Amino acid sequence: MGKMPVKAVNMKDDYLELGFAKLDISRKRRIGFDETVFCSGKTKEQLLQIFSAFQENSCNALGTRCSREQYEFVRNAMPEVHYDTTSKILSLRNRKPQALAGKIAICCAGTADLPIAEEAATVAEFQGATVEKFFDIGVAGLHRLLSKIEQIRRANVVIAIAGMEGSLAGILAGLVQAPVIAVPTSVGYGASLQGIVPLLSMINSCAEGISVVNIDNGFGAAIQACRILKQIAHH
Amino acid sequence: MGKMPVKAVNMKDDYLELGFAKLDISRKRRIGFDETVFCSGKTKEQLLQIFSAFQENSCNALGTRCSREQYEFVRNAMPEVHYDTTSKILSLRNRKPQALAGKIAICCAGTADLPIAEEAATVAEFQGATVEKFFDIGVAGLHRLLSKIEQIRRANVVIAIAGMEGSLAGILAGLVQAPVIAVPTSVGYGASLQGIVPLLSMINSCAEGISVVNIDNGFGAAIQACRILKQIAHH
Amino acid sequence: MGKMPVKAVNMKDDYLELGFAKLDISRKRRIGFDETVFCSGKTKEQLLQIFSAFQENSCNALGTRCSREQYEFVRNAMPEVHYDTTSKILSLRNRKPQALAGKIAICCAGTADLPIAEEAATVAEFQGATVEKFFDIGVAGLHRLLSKIEQIRRANVVIAIAGMEGSLAGILAGLVQAPVIAVPTSVGYGASLQGIVPLLSMINSCAEGISVVNIDNGFGAAIQACRILKQIAHH
Amino acid sequence: MGKMPVKAVNMKDDYLELGFAKLDISRKRRIGFDETVFCSGKTKEQLLQIFSAFQENSCNALGTRCSREQYEFVRNAMPEVHYDTTSKILSLRNRKPQALAGKIAICCAGTADLPIAEEAATVAEFQGATVEKFFDIGVAGLHRLLSKIEQIRRANVVIAIAGMEGSLAGILAGLVQAPVIAVPTSVGYGASLQGIVPLLSMINSCAEGISVVNIDNGFGAAIQACRILKQIAHH
Amino acid sequence: MGKMPVKAVNMKDDYLELGFAKLDISRKRRIGFDETVFCSGKTKEQLLQIFSAFQENSCNALGTRCSREQYEFVRNAMPEVHYDTTSKILSLRNRKPQALAGKIAICCAGTADLPIAEEAATVAEFQGATVEKFFDIGVAGLHRLLSKIEQIRRANVVIAIAGMEGSLAGILAGLVQAPVIAVPTSVGYGASLQGIVPLLSMINSCAEGISVVNIDNGFGAAIQACRILKQIAHH
Amino acid sequence: MGKMPVKAVNMKDDYLELGFAKLDISRKRRIGFDETVFCSGKTKEQLLQIFSAFQENSCNALGTRCSREQYEFVRNAMPEVHYDTTSKILSLRNRKPQALAGKIAICCAGTADLPIAEEAATVAEFQGATVEKFFDIGVAGLHRLLSKIEQIRRANVVIAIAGMEGSLAGILAGLVQAPVIAVPTSVGYGASLQGIVPLLSMINSCAEGISVVNIDNGFGAAIQACRILKQIAHH
Amino acid sequence: MGKMPVKAVNMKDDYLELGFAKLDISRKRRIGFDETVFCSGKTKEQLLQIFSAFQENSCNALGTRCSREQYEFVRNAMPEVHYDTTSKILSLRNRKPQALAGKIAICCAGTADLPIAEEAATVAEFQGATVEKFFDIGVAGLHRLLSKIEQIRRANVVIAIAGMEGSLAGILAGLVQAPVIAVPTSVGYGASLQGIVPLLSMINSCAEGISVVNIDNGFGAAIQACRILKQIAHH
Amino acid sequence: MGKMPVKAVNMKDDYLELGFAKLDISRKRRIGFDETVFCSGKTKEQLLQIFSAFQENSCNALGTRCSREQYEFVRNAMPEVHYDTTSKILSLRNRKPQALAGKIAICCAGTADLPIAEEAATVAEFQGATVEKFFDIGVAGLHRLLSKIEQIRRANVVIAIAGMEGSLAGILAGLVQAPVIAVPTSVGYGASLQGIVPLLSMINSCAEGISVVNIDNGFGAAIQACRILKQIAHH
Repeated sequence: MGKMPVKAVNMKDDYLELGFAKLDISRKRRIGFDETVFCSGKTKEQLLQIFSAFQENSCNALGTRCSREQYEFVRNAMPEVHYDTTSKILSLRNRKPQALAGKIAICCAGTADLPIAEEAATVAEFQGATVEKFFDIGVAGLHRLLSKIEQIRRANVVIAIAGMEGSLAGILAGLVQAPVIAVPTSVGYGASLQGIVPLLSMINSCAEGISVVNIDNGFGAAIQACRILKQIAHH
Repeated sequence: MGKMPVKAVNMKDDYLELGFAKLDISRKRRIGFDETVFCSGKTKEQLLQIFSAFQENSCNALGTRCSREQYEFVRNAMPEVHYDTTSKILSLRNRKPQALAGKIAICCAGTADLPIAEEAATVAEFQGATVEKFFDIGVAGLHRLLSKIEQIRRANVVIAIAGMEGSLAGILAGLVQAPVIAVPTSVGYGASLQGIVPLLSMINSCAEGISVVNIDNGFGAAIQACRILKQIAHH
Repeated sequence: MGKMPVKAVNMKDDYLELGFAKLDISRKRRIGFDETVFCSGKTKEQLLQIFSAFQENSCNALGTRCSREQYEFVRNAMPEVHYDTTSKILSLRNRKPQALAGKIAICCAGTADLPIAEEAATVAEFQGATVEKFFDIGVAGLHRLLSKIEQIRRANVVIAIAGMEGSLAGILAGLVQAPVIAVPTSVGYGASLQGIVPLLSMINSCAEGISVVNIDNGFGAAIQACRILKQIAHH
Repeated sequence: MGKMPVKAVNMKDDYLELGFAKLDISRKRRIGFDETVFCSGKTKEQLLQIFSAFQENSCNALGTRCSREQYEFVRNAMPEVHYDTTSKILSLRNRKPQALAGKIAICCAGTADLPIAEEAATVAEFQGATVEKFFDIGVAGLHRLLSKIEQIRRANVVIAIAGMEGSLAGILAGLVQAPVIAVPTSVGYGASLQGIVPLLSMINSCAEGISVVNIDNGFGAAIQACRILKQIAHH
Repeated sequence: MGKMPVKAVNMKDDYLELGFAKLDISRKRRIGFDETVFCSGKTKEQLLQIFSAFQENSCNALGTRCSREQYEFVRNAMPEVHYDTTSKILSLRNRKPQALAGKIAICCAGTADLPIAEEAATVAEFQGATVEKFFDIGVAGLHRLLSKIEQIRRANVVIAIAGMEGSLAGILAGLVQAPVIAVPTSVGYGASLQGIVPLLSMINSCAEGISVVNIDNGFGAAIQACRILKQIAHH
Repeated sequence: MGKMPVKAVNMKDDYLELGFAKLDISRKRRIGFDETVFCSGKTKEQLLQIFSAFQENSCNALGTRCSREQYEFVRNAMPEVHYDTTSKILSLRNRKPQALAGKIAICCAGTADLPIAEEAATVAEFQGATVEKFFDIGVAGLHRLLSKIEQIRRANVVIAIAGMEGSLAGILAGLVQAPVIAVPTSVGYGASLQGIVPLLSMINSCAEGISVVNIDNGFGAAIQACRILKQIAHH
Repeated sequence: MGKMPVKAVNMKDDYLELGFAKLDISRKRRIGFDETVFCSGKTKEQLLQIFSAFQENSCNALGTRCSREQYEFVRNAMPEVHYDTTSKILSLRNRKPQALAGKIAICCAGTADLPIAEEAATVAEFQGATVEKFFDIGVAGLHRLLSKIEQIRRANVVIAIAGMEGSLAGILAGLVQAPVIAVPTSVGYGASLQGIVPLLSMINSCAEGISVVNIDNGFGAAIQACRILKQIAHH
Repeated sequence: MGKMPVKAVNMKDDYLELGFAKLDISRKRRIGFDETVFCSGKTKEQLLQIFSAFQENSCNALGTRCSREQYEFVRNAMPEVHYDTTSKILSLRNRKPQALAGKIAICCAGTADLPIAEEAATVAEFQGATVEKFFDIGVAGLHRLLSKIEQIRRANVVIAIAGMEGSLAGILAGLVQAPVIAVPTSVGYGASLQGIVPLLSMINSCAEGISVVNIDNGFGAAIQACRILKQIAHH
């Protein structure tokens, strides 16, 4: 047992001060990805100021859950931004991302999960990842999933997206070797509790090799998958 | 639109008055099964009085969730009772049940679900049903379930018992034609909420042909399965 | 104890690949019913593509929770579809269903439960079942239920639909011999928690012979009832 | 609109100061009943001090949820106290209560609800009420309840005690004219959530004329019933 | 112990059959009040049919939670109906109610609770009760409540209406002798959970003499209060 | 132990009686702040009457959660009122508040928390407090918070506002000496449960020196902070 | 808008490394109080090592929720420690705390809340605060609270401790000028949900000037109160 | 759009049939790890049979949540098993695992989280991973975490283990580039809800790069971390 002389922690990270926001422009260096903006709850004027600041600093940036109205307001002033209708992602790309090694399989249980699946795909590709999509392979018709399983097994990370009872994640985790990132969705009705049931179901899976992100959080699953792919490159 | 002259409802059903209990001895005629006693929460003296009354009236009777201590107290006075350690069922049989047509498949996900599976099996057999058991076929190792699926498909009712995320019921319902009675169990830990998660997961299954009973309610699933088998005979 | 050489599972089931969806056209053979589409959460273009595919393959198909707007979009291109306003069911019928043996009693507690009761009736009749309806027989005026009980007792399956405290299912299960499929509804206010209370109340019923489906899931109850009726025929 | 000169509120009520407790000896005058002590969570020394103080002031007093160990400790020093094993009520009576007009019907659904029913009965009789008991009349065997309904209808207040799904209260309220005080109990298992389900079920009853007290709160129901009986006398 | 020969229960109660509804016209005789219609969830055509039927049978009837649109549709065909904007109650009166003995004090905590308080007042007065109102006496400014307490103490029943933390009911129950019927309201925000918190808070009150009805259920509280007042008359 | 003769409590506090409301004009003397009106749930006519009454009595008054429509209605009749769009606060100032000693640091985690942060700032300044704002210092980019920590440490009270997982409050409490008032916000999605998760997270903080107010309750945090500042002056 | 060059954050704080624990010995300088150890969940050997390390460094230290068994194991090796049976606090005092200005009023609703009240008192006095205690002043007998209110109003901070429905905190906050720190307790039964109900009730109080700590967290309330008292001194 | 002829899925996986269990001995080949047995809920006789079967087949196997009593029973018959007291892991090793590339950092917030941290460490090392441990670095003393951050940043996966409010995971994810696997623990009291609060807090983290496993599921986090490390090798 000894007294530990702690050296000063040197947090040299920078940010851009906008008053209502502090943009974390050192994020790329610190955690490996550019800042992402959660658009919901911000005024369209704030959003424009934020993306303008990124543009002035030649950053890449993503905006998730961006409404069409927010997008149109920003695009009027900044034609450089891009918008994807299904995933509701606003993006600004000033440089091409470095291609990541490996591959991500994005699987979803039903057609209603598509917006979340596309959010995951758009984010992962923006970060340089290779993505393969497997849609509508929910467990009510198991043969659909089984007909694709060999292809899914070749991915380095599997993103499993499902609402209702969320079984897809556990079934996949029992059939592949790669880590499974489970995304519960708010698809369902009645006692699905807006996604709480598939969230808890995935958390309690009897299969191992699953970890879970927030309901409808395709973005978070994609970033986690990209963090994993980066370990391949790091090594 | 007319005023409906309602004829007097003639409820001629009888019961035995014990003061602290009213034993429903007309149940067999009314709903097709003998009375079952939920032993938990009754004193051992009350239990003995109840089973003695059934014996005096030559009834068949079941006691579920019967502790070993309750059983031993009753058996001392009434050697006719039988007890099953795994399912904790106390039984009194004064006449042989009529054999039911058809077959029940009782499936459970893991070894820890066995007490509930055995409760279901014991109750169903007591009522005259033919039972086939498929244990430890949880979805983490899907090949175990798939290796048995042809046999399961030959049953007229499937009882699917699982804790944790409770996927087994939905998978089965997507692979068989018979009705699936799902039994969530309190097996699990952490966020399984003592069975609430598999209960809600089963309720939200994207597969059709599932209906759900209470957590750990092997008894209820068995009776529901027997009610279904009786429809075969009725016709 | 022996090592089990597991034979290859032969899942020869087919599906139609639409990219955003995989239509399970082998369902009829596998589980006995045609595919049903959950319309809520799908775009109207997706819905049209799905029903067109079913039509091209001469399938029967149902769409539940179909909005009037979705229906009108599909009908413009496909005059063959039919729509029921109360139950919000879209249907496509290319061949007459085989009549099922037996009868289903559909009981509901109050007038506000009618849309769910009609969903159950429409689905069951689409599958070939005979249905008898008993509406507004909730327990606040018990004589209404008792005046109908003899008729209800003649059914092979009873569907009990109720919101608020959901007592109807347990009362019925204590008075009939047939299996009771309970459907909690979101009818109610305040602490009914959008149907969670009748759901849990039905799950905890002290009466035996009840199993429960999701809140407002008239469709699921009907299919479960039809699976039960099919056992009569199978035998 | 006018400024209201508020006169000083004259709260002349007294209490006995014990340091760790302030005994509300003016309760009888203020709200019509003597103080009741919730024994659970108090040390046995505190309990003795409290009952000694009541005795010194010639008060009547009740202690609910009193363990046998607490009782025996108090009785050793104060032989005047009385204890009821089923209801776990400790009582001290220095004067006979004034008889209340009218009658309370105490109904319970099953044998396991007896301790709560006896708590209600003991408290009500201690306060001078006339009580009639109807035990084990749960709705799974409706004829048992219906065979007693004429007697129950003659009471001025009905206490309805039930666990599991708690239907008894609503059924009774639809059949009698008197106010129904509903007591959910923690009897049940699995998804009954230790009485939360019957509590919410009773709160959501479609029948009118029900109001609800806490889970297992036989005491509270009895006092509320006595408050109602007192209105008869007051008038 | 003896076998109880149960005489046939004679339920001679009548109802009007409307197909989608069965109107309980024997309610007055059975439980002492006319039928009340919960308007929410019914179509305006159904509502008109129901009130027309009551009118044809010269019944009094109330409709709670009636929207202005529903009201206007009914009134166009039936000018006899009356509507109260604050309480959203539709009423049809064919005969004057018999005046009830005693008095009800209706207390509410804040101005936002007024619609519920007025619902209670309108219903109670419709049933013949005398009502006194005490509004905005919430506990944040205790002197307001204390300035009125002597008047409140003169009532035979106290209805206590409050949202947020719902303290009003418990404070009142500690200061009056009459039974307190507590009505939690959905007034509040954030963690008030749409009234679940005041509901549970009232259920757990340390004061005795409280029983609780559903969130925002002014109607239910009024009927319970009237049932209590009727006991005065009965005696 | 002795009997405590309790002297009459002299509650001389006044209020203005408006019928639907009782305005607590003695609040300033009793608890140190003027009355605040929770505008949500009040009609615009009621709001005008309330603010008119305050104006007639020359009171200062605040209205929180005031909609633009409510504001415009009141302002038309009372041009003296002021409205802040971001915080949705309506204010009426008839006298300048006494300046409070000390300083409040208002910290928020993200841009979407701004309305709550501005509500806290507006209320605190209205009461005479000095406020310093630190916005968008959430823990995902810890260097932003650490770059401001020396300034925050100079405040006498810290208000920490955060949604999602609400970590900000605990981090701050571990770095400053002043009391931290934590305000969970409804910012987030999916499993954040409209602010319940940050509320419970803050309540469970492993750091000491935190106490928590309701979700989105910037007003309550500001008043609590001002109560603390007043202790400096009192001494 | 400008790029903020962030200076290195100089966290010179020290700790003692024990392997299984890192003792935060710079806490006194950083946040103003010595480290407190949460004893529950630590082995008695770990606890001894921790307190020995504090002793070697001449620190003051508190251990909360210390079992008698843990205490006896530590005291055998370290006779310097002190233990309080009611509050279950283990303490080690190597220097006298500096007396804090002002006074804390510790109020609790019932006798069963005493252990938490004593935890708060012991912790506050250990930190140098002056404490005045007001026990058993719950709102069921309001005159008890009112008889003490003038004394309570003289404190600089009020700690309000209550279980069941937790009304005490809101009532006090409406009657005093000082900040109220509310401590919900797990005292109660049935639907009190082990303290969740008083917690949420306190969070939703309609009175202002309340902030809330965790259930049964007397320690946390005391530290928050001491942080407030320190602001008096700081100024 | 085309009809997809689905080739037979060839699931050649084997298992050992024990009657009460089906041991998944093809798991290593299918998902890359040996079977792990969840010991809780199994009888000690079942456990011995299972480990004997593994031993006969020369498998490696782990048993988690193994009680000392279970261990001793198994070891008596099978001296080859090993047991770790802190993590409660029973292990059987018949061959050395292949060393995995990369490194896992296992971080925990407090001393009470140690059993879970050791479960994670034991499982990961059993699978061939290199592990570095960082214990008691919770956010209440942020300098402890910051003093270790450079070391943690060198790992390929970070496991973050915390109870109470669970902030550690989010803070870490904002400071490292590797994926963070968050493990909520049941450490805490009061409103921590046995780990539900840190679970939901971690799920809602505003930082990206976190995915979450079940409460106290050190095992699951370790396997997920190993799956990630295996991707490095695969490439």
